[in-house]
Amino acid sequence: MKEFELISRLTQDLPTHREVVVGPGDDCAVLDVGLPDRLLLFKTDAVVEGVHYPPGTAAEKVGRKALARCLSDIAAMAGTPTAALITLALPAKYDLDFVDGIYRGIAALAREHGVAIAGGETTTNPGRILLSVSLLGWSERDRAILRSGAQAGDAIFVTGKLGGSIAGKHLDFEPRLAEARWLAQHFKVHAMIDLSDGLAGDLPHILKASGVGADLLASAIPISREARLTARDHPGKPALAAALSDGEDFELLFTLASRAAVPVVDAWKKQFPSLPLSCIGKITKEPGIRLRDKYGVRPLNANGYVHLT
Amino acid sequence: MKEFELISRLTQDLPTHREVVVGPGDDCAVLDVGLPDRLLLFKTDAVVEGVHYPPGTAAEKVGRKALARCLSDIAAMAGTPTAALITLALPAKYDLDFVDGIYRGIAALAREHGVAIAGGETTTNPGRILLSVSLLGWSERDRAILRSGAQAGDAIFVTGKLGGSIAGKHLDFEPRLAEARWLAQHFKVHAMIDLSDGLAGDLPHILKASGVGADLLASAIPISREARLTARDHPGKPALAAALSDGEDFELLFTLASRAAVPVVDAWKKQFPSLPLSCIGKITKEPGIRLRDKYGVRPLNANGYVHLT
Repeated sequence: MKEFELISRLTQDLPTHREVVVGPGDDCAVLDVGLPDRLLLFKTDAVVEGVHYPPGTAAEKVGRKALARCLSDIAAMAGTPTAALITLALPAKYDLDFVDGIYRGIAALAREHGVAIAGGETTTNPGRILLSVSLLGWSERDRAILRSGAQAGDAIFVTGKLGGSIAGKHLDFEPRLAEARWLAQHFKVHAMIDLSDGLAGDLPHILKASGVGADLLASAIPISREARLTARDHPGKPALAAALSDGEDFELLFTLASRAAVPVVDAWKKQFPSLPLSCIGKITKEPGIRLRDKYGVRPLNANGYVHLT
Repeated sequence: MKEFELISRLTQDLPTHREVVVGPGDDCAVLDVGLPDRLLLFKTDAVVEGVHYPPGTAAEKVGRKALARCLSDIAAMAGTPTAALITLALPAKYDLDFVDGIYRGIAALAREHGVAIAGGETTTNPGRILLSVSLLGWSERDRAILRSGAQAGDAIFVTGKLGGSIAGKHLDFEPRLAEARWLAQHFKVHAMIDLSDGLAGDLPHILKASGVGADLLASAIPISREARLTARDHPGKPALAAALSDGEDFELLFTLASRAAVPVVDAWKKQFPSLPLSCIGKITKEPGIRLRDKYGVRPLNANGYVHLT
C-alpha cells in the first residue's frame, strides 16, 4: 500500500473539533482559535536516519532539514511559523557530539526565521535516529492558501528549478516563507503546495482537492543543473523526468487566474531577482495531467514517471 | 548521560518567540496567542515498540497509550485538549490490521475527550513502530498550573494509587483531565505534574522548578494492589519502593497551601468518590526529599530508589 493510500485509509471518520477548519489532507492543519485576523497552522514532520539522510551526513544538516521541511509546509499556506517542539529518538548508544550538532542545526534555522524551540522530548529508538518536528504558525485569516482552490483556466507556477535535490539541495534548501507571504499579500493565489514528492507527485494533490486537471508545457518546466548533470551520466532517465519526478525540491507550486500571470511574473522579477518563477501550464476542467512537448501531447503518470510514447 | 541531563544540555540557549510564555522544562509549552481568557498548550510525546510497549500488545492499546500520555500532560496544566497530529513511523513491512487498530485506539480516546485528529504523517522506521502524538489544548489564562509554584508549607497531594503500572495500567490509564480542571477551578493549586517517572523521579521536577524541598510520610503514600502483589513475590523490592519509583502511573502530583488541605480532601470525596486523593507530605524550605517512616527519617534518592538505612 502506497503512503497516500494508507493515509487516506487511516484518516477516514476521525474525530474533529469545532476549531479545526482544515483537517487531514492539506499541507498543515488549520485551526480557527477565535482571533479575528489569524488562523493557527499546525504541522508535524519527521526525518529518519537511512531514510531521509544517509549515515555520515553532517549533524547540523540533519537538524536543519527536519525543521526546514516543516517550515516549507507553513510556507505552502503562506504562513508565518512561531514555535516548534523537537522529538529526538535515539539509539541506546549515540554520539553526543552528533546530537549537539543536530540541535545546532535546528536552532540556527529557527533563529533565521524567528521560530522558538519551545520544548519536546528525547526517547529511545533502537537502531537509528528519528527526529520529528511539530510546528505552529499563523496565516492571515483571509490568506491561508489551501490545495483546493485551483480553477479551470488558472495559470500554474513553480519557483526555483526542479530535480536532482538528492545531490545536496535536500539538506540545505531554503523554505520559501518570504516568497509565499509576498505572493499571498499581492496576488489572489488560488491553490498552493510545496513540492516534496516531485511535480508529478504533488500537482495531483492540488488537482484532486480542486476537482480539476492540468496541461503542462514540457519546455517550460525549469530543470536544475543537478538534474541535467545526472542525466548526462544516466541516459535512461532524461533531465525532464528527473524534474518531474525527483522528490524533495521544496519549491512552491501554485495557481492563480491567467489574467494575473503576467503581472505576477513582472512583480516577482523585481522582488526576488535571483529565484526563477516559471509558468509551466494551465489548469483544465478535464481531469488528469497532460504534458505537451515537440512530439505531441502525452498523459503524465501520477506516480511521477513520464510514459514515453 | 541520563535523559534529564541530555534535555538540560540540549535546551540551553534555544531561540524563543514573544508568544512563548513557558518553554522547555514543564509538562507542556505554553503560548500566549493574544486571547484574553486563554493560553495555548503544546505538547509532543512518542511511544516506541519494544520500549513503551512489548511486541504482542493489542494495537488499540498502543494507539490509546500514545494519545493518553499527551492528554496526561495537558491535564498536568489543568488544560482542555483540542487537536492532535499523529506521526506514524512504520517498518517497510507492517501489518495493516495492526495499523488500523492503532488508529481505532487513538480515535476512540480522542472522541471520549472531544479531541480532533487533525492530520499527521506516515513515514518509515525500519525495525519497529514509532508513534508520536502532537497535541494542542487550552488552559484558562489565570489557571495554567506550572511546576514552579510550590511554596514552603504547602501540602503535597497525589491522586490514585502508585506503583506496578507495568502490570497493565500503563496501557489503559485514565488521563486525569476532569480532575485537574476541577482542582484548578475550585482551589489555588500552586504546582502540578503528572507522574510518568515515579513519585521519586517527578517530585524533584516540582522541587527544582520551585526552589524548595519536601518531607514525605511513608505511611501516607498510596500503594497500588499491583505493587503489593509484585512485592509479595519479589522480597528485594518492597511495595513502597515500587510506589515511589515505578514509572507510568500517570496520576497527578500537586501542592497547595496547607490551609486548603482539609477542604480539598472533603470536596474531592464528594466530586470523585472512586478515585483516592492522598496528602503525602509537605513542601519545605530545605532542599531534598526526606521520607519519614516508623524507623525515622531518611533521604530519598532522586533517581527513585529508597536508601534503606
